[in-house]
Amino acid sequence: MTRADLAAVEEANAEFYAAFEAGDLDRMSAVWAGGPHAASVGCVHPGWPLLKGRDEVLRSWALIMANTPYIQFVLTDLHTEVFGDHALVTCSENIITMDDSGEDAGMLAGGSIVATNLFLRVEGEWRLLHHHGSPVLNQMEDDEE
Amino acid sequence: MTRADLAAVEEANAEFYAAFEAGDLDRMSAVWAGGPHAASVGCVHPGWPLLKGRDEVLRSWALIMANTPYIQFVLTDLHTEVFGDHALVTCSENIITMDDSGEDAGMLAGGSIVATNLFLRVEGEWRLLHHHGSPVLNQMEDDEE
Repeated sequence: MTRADLAAVEEANAEFYAAFEAGDLDRMSAVWAGGPHAASVGCVHPGWPLLKGRDEVLRSWALIMANTPYIQFVLTDLHTEVFGDHALVTCSENIITMDDSGEDAGMLAGGSIVATNLFLRVEGEWRLLHHHGSPVLNQMEDDEE
Repeated sequence: MTRADLAAVEEANAEFYAAFEAGDLDRMSAVWAGGPHAASVGCVHPGWPLLKGRDEVLRSWALIMANTPYIQFVLTDLHTEVFGDHALVTCSENIITMDDSGEDAGMLAGGSIVATNLFLRVEGEWRLLHHHGSPVLNQMEDDEE
């Protein structure tokens, strides 16, 4: 696991969120693995069941991005590990959204999502193979006390 | 990816749920990777943030199992892929719980969880390296219509 590998994986991870922020389906399509790996692609959006297969996953992103006028992520707690041609990234997606008036609703207005992202290196490029995002419930802070 | 590899990974995955059902912390400890991989261990319980590191993850299981008098899983939609010494399993955890009277509350009473489980082969044995579970909201069925 070289520093260059780590940097390349984290760049691919950042591009996933940048593609979502930009609402750009072409960029989002390029983020995900395809070709012989298309059937292995999997995605769990927060509260959703698993979507399996590249086509189904990209259809969901088209739908979600069409219904998201504005979103911005601040990633924290990033952990990255590379093992051969696979890499695991976990991070907290802190979401900034806009309120109904179009004003910036501020940090964390959209809550926090914890994400597990598994990448595959295909011809030298890191592609997203599996994404699992789930909401972090604030209740937990109380439960822990 | 041989049939024997697949079977061994699915056995390790089943043991994870069996250890939880049995409320047996020793079995649960044996499920998870340790030694040089202890720091890489990660776990997201439904609605929780990421817990990182073997000790923190096992403490959470001790707490959860102590507070779960009865739980049973029916796993569906199992997908398994082996890549070298790592393997990815995704599945739906359909939970059977007991109601307050101690009667079996029936299938799905506890809802459905979608899980991403990443295993690592250590000295020939598959160990759980990363678990991410999240609730599937019933609302989705309405949204899809």
